[in-house]
Amino acid sequence: MRDSNNVFHLAIPCQDLDAAYDFYVTKLGCKLARRYDDRITLDFFGDQLVCHRSDKIDLDPKPYPRHFGVTFKEQREFDALVHLVRQREVPFFQEPAKRFSGLVEEHLTFMLIDPSNNILEFKYYFDSRMMY
Amino acid sequence: MRDSNNVFHLAIPCQDLDAAYDFYVTKLGCKLARRYDDRITLDFFGDQLVCHRSDKIDLDPKPYPRHFGVTFKEQREFDALVHLVRQREVPFFQEPAKRFSGLVEEHLTFMLIDPSNNILEFKYYFDSRMMY
Amino acid sequence: MRDSNNVFHLAIPCQDLDAAYDFYVTKLGCKLARRYDDRITLDFFGDQLVCHRSDKIDLDPKPYPRHFGVTFKEQREFDALVHLVRQREVPFFQEPAKRFSGLVEEHLTFMLIDPSNNILEFKYYFDSRMMY
Amino acid sequence: MRDSNNVFHLAIPCQDLDAAYDFYVTKLGCKLARRYDDRITLDFFGDQLVCHRSDKIDLDPKPYPRHFGVTFKEQREFDALVHLVRQREVPFFQEPAKRFSGLVEEHLTFMLIDPSNNILEFKYYFDSRMMY
Amino acid sequence: MRDSNNVFHLAIPCQDLDAAYDFYVTKLGCKLARRYDDRITLDFFGDQLVCHRSDKIDLDPKPYPRHFGVTFKEQREFDALVHLVRQREVPFFQEPAKRFSGLVEEHLTFMLIDPSNNILEFKYYFDSRMMY
Amino acid sequence: MRDSNNVFHLAIPCQDLDAAYDFYVTKLGCKLARRYDDRITLDFFGDQLVCHRSDKIDLDPKPYPRHFGVTFKEQREFDALVHLVRQREVPFFQEPAKRFSGLVEEHLTFMLIDPSNNILEFKYYFDSRMMY
Amino acid sequence: MRDSNNVFHLAIPCQDLDAAYDFYVTKLGCKLARRYDDRITLDFFGDQLVCHRSDKIDLDPKPYPRHFGVTFKEQREFDALVHLVRQREVPFFQEPAKRFSGLVEEHLTFMLIDPSNNILEFKYYFDSRMMY
Amino acid sequence: MRDSNNVFHLAIPCQDLDAAYDFYVTKLGCKLARRYDDRITLDFFGDQLVCHRSDKIDLDPKPYPRHFGVTFKEQREFDALVHLVRQREVPFFQEPAKRFSGLVEEHLTFMLIDPSNNILEFKYYFDSRMMY
Repeated sequence: MRDSNNVFHLAIPCQDLDAAYDFYVTKLGCKLARRYDDRITLDFFGDQLVCHRSDKIDLDPKPYPRHFGVTFKEQREFDALVHLVRQREVPFFQEPAKRFSGLVEEHLTFMLIDPSNNILEFKYYFDSRMMY
Repeated sequence: MRDSNNVFHLAIPCQDLDAAYDFYVTKLGCKLARRYDDRITLDFFGDQLVCHRSDKIDLDPKPYPRHFGVTFKEQREFDALVHLVRQREVPFFQEPAKRFSGLVEEHLTFMLIDPSNNILEFKYYFDSRMMY
Repeated sequence: MRDSNNVFHLAIPCQDLDAAYDFYVTKLGCKLARRYDDRITLDFFGDQLVCHRSDKIDLDPKPYPRHFGVTFKEQREFDALVHLVRQREVPFFQEPAKRFSGLVEEHLTFMLIDPSNNILEFKYYFDSRMMY
Repeated sequence: MRDSNNVFHLAIPCQDLDAAYDFYVTKLGCKLARRYDDRITLDFFGDQLVCHRSDKIDLDPKPYPRHFGVTFKEQREFDALVHLVRQREVPFFQEPAKRFSGLVEEHLTFMLIDPSNNILEFKYYFDSRMMY
Repeated sequence: MRDSNNVFHLAIPCQDLDAAYDFYVTKLGCKLARRYDDRITLDFFGDQLVCHRSDKIDLDPKPYPRHFGVTFKEQREFDALVHLVRQREVPFFQEPAKRFSGLVEEHLTFMLIDPSNNILEFKYYFDSRMMY
Repeated sequence: MRDSNNVFHLAIPCQDLDAAYDFYVTKLGCKLARRYDDRITLDFFGDQLVCHRSDKIDLDPKPYPRHFGVTFKEQREFDALVHLVRQREVPFFQEPAKRFSGLVEEHLTFMLIDPSNNILEFKYYFDSRMMY
Repeated sequence: MRDSNNVFHLAIPCQDLDAAYDFYVTKLGCKLARRYDDRITLDFFGDQLVCHRSDKIDLDPKPYPRHFGVTFKEQREFDALVHLVRQREVPFFQEPAKRFSGLVEEHLTFMLIDPSNNILEFKYYFDSRMMY
Repeated sequence: MRDSNNVFHLAIPCQDLDAAYDFYVTKLGCKLARRYDDRITLDFFGDQLVCHRSDKIDLDPKPYPRHFGVTFKEQREFDALVHLVRQREVPFFQEPAKRFSGLVEEHLTFMLIDPSNNILEFKYYFDSRMMY
């Protein structure tokens, strides 16, 4: 179990802060914490995501090795997010699917891609001990 | 405050799984959760870090725009980590320093670099509302 | 002790959404949750504040009977907010002061006023049982 | 997630303290914390509500822009309150209804009005991330 | 550690509900939850105390074997209550004192008596394992 | 919500410590914390119960005004205790029943009596706000 | 309820650290915290297990009197572990079974044996007060 | 961080149940949960310890490889236990000492031995990440 006091933070490249704001806040429902000329900081599902204005984005985005996201403890949170993504018509980078069927690591997963080609993955494991 | 049930997860490239194991587990004191042929998964300060074997590493690592780490709520956890890094002689990518002095965003910070050129940052904000 | 799952919500009039955004997000460090044409919703110290565009603002704002804010459990959170208010030069509607000295209800308090004349009060009680 | 240690507080005008006591404590089941000549303080669903004796009440109460209340995390708490309101025959200012059907912001809501024309709203969002 | 969801409840005799209200709410700072013709229910430091109107009170009150109260985990809560009792001039039935000095069970304690001769004891143990 | 750190404590008269031990520990499943010549202290559902050896017991025990017990947040805990009482053949002083049907205060309740005529009541409220 | 900050620790003999790693980490899904020449330390369901290299292992392992394990609060965690054990083909030392049927102490249980003949037991009690 | 709902359990051999009761309950301040003819179950610092009547005790007890105990998060809990052990004159099997000075794993530790030759160790790590 992680500590609810500390915060994970991740800094990623972002070509256009307005597009990042639109994707993360207006679409995904994250909260805008701070806005500076060169970056925005977000409360991303309780952790900190920083979008730094940069041209060093990935021109050929692949799901591996780089992506980030949240693994939910309860399936209803995963399902609610799938519902939001569909209702707000955020395109999937990878449709919701079950992975590793028949193994202990079996989980639900889907992937999104933000306007600067950063790839996000959200997961739900049937056996919560596999979250790590 | 983030939810202690959910887990943030981050996947990063890693040239050599043994070197990653040595850096994250033996040196930084993270826990090894699972080991596969092509990746290791870690309990990284309570969140999940996945090191995928890959050659897509950053050959010219810069602290911006990409890095990740933890922002501690209590200074003693930040100080304990500085102590560990020094005692185990993990080289700093950026020495502990105070940033944004005189502003509300004032915080302590240091950076490390892992064997695959991923950059880590650990922070402590004097005003905990600035953690996001 | 209140339930950390539920959320208090307060809707207030606001003449100008940009000014409200500037006051609550940029200055006070609240998080922007959602923005619509006629309102913004904020994560205000963990509860929900909704600023509705309206002309029904109070032209002669007085501290009583209407105001809202947060009572902190720990003095360091109260002090950190005083520090933020001073550093970012948000004018006080009422300077930090001690009220009810010598009584059990003794507490620290200060007041702010937002651009639409809504009055905010932040408090810290030396005896935490008096928070209610 | 809000901090269970801190307390939101809201001060509202109240023409008659006994009527406020009857509405909030006897009917709604809030707890009376303190009673003074000019105000009562209440533990209102875990936060603090202060009813100040005042004649500055709203003579033409409208649901917008001013109202306050609680957003519940679990539907059973919302339902229990609807049940209480009906059983104790507190008149609805606005009957329980679903709002924003088909959108992510979809939620259940009802409104009450206290004896001094303050309007209360209680809500339950199907997607708990929309509570803010 | 006890469960924060459940509530201990204690019903005691009370000759005069107004006097009980004055002692527990106005003086001790407990919250009034409900008032009926024959009893009042109180939020007594987070648990439930019910004062039933009755003439079966103890005419010769002794500290043993019957009394009730709270054992605080932190000394500052014990001290704050001693401070409240003194400032509001509630007479002590037994002055604050240290008991069992030199033993592991060493603790601070004081006793009060309510208007219906029920005896209250508040304690703080230096070794918190002795709270049971 | 009560504080899980503090402990309610109740001292009651007890004619026979072994009988009290048998009733509270062997039958009801409470934990014995400490045993002295003149008293035993128990972890009673997370709070402290002290049985003092005394002859001042109630010779004509009535359910009012004196009794004590626990109000459970979840019905399954109430049901489990009814099950235990029946399986271990502890006689009911008052059989499980529903009280205040049709009112908001509706709850399940049963009563036991210990070997020294102290009366215990356990409850479950359908509307958890009525626990106080 | 136990304290989530403290950690139980158990040290056991282990003939072969690699076999222990395989059993506890690869099979059972525990996390490796530290590895030394003479021992490995594990995060075993949230507590600490230390496998010390030693030849003092039990050559005739019996389930009593020595074994250790976890008692789960929720049945779904017990079931998930049974599922993992079957899917990863860890042999049972004692198949899942119900014990003490018809008594309050009724519980589900199964036993495993590690490569150094240490016996593990996992349990789920229908009445959670029997966990101790 | 471990889950406060689940419970670690450890079963150990015990030649004499009364002696075990005296050592664990009367001396160490653990709570007796249940007593059967062939075993006692204890709430040992929040986890479950079961002492099974058995003659399979260790005749030549050594601190390695078998021992068990608690690692405290806060030094004051460790110190309180040292104080209790001294005040109640429980002999140390190993006096309080600092181990691994100068390393990150630096910690305080002491050992006890119970009447059936089971060895207990209690620890406090200066860097709490080393608790595992």
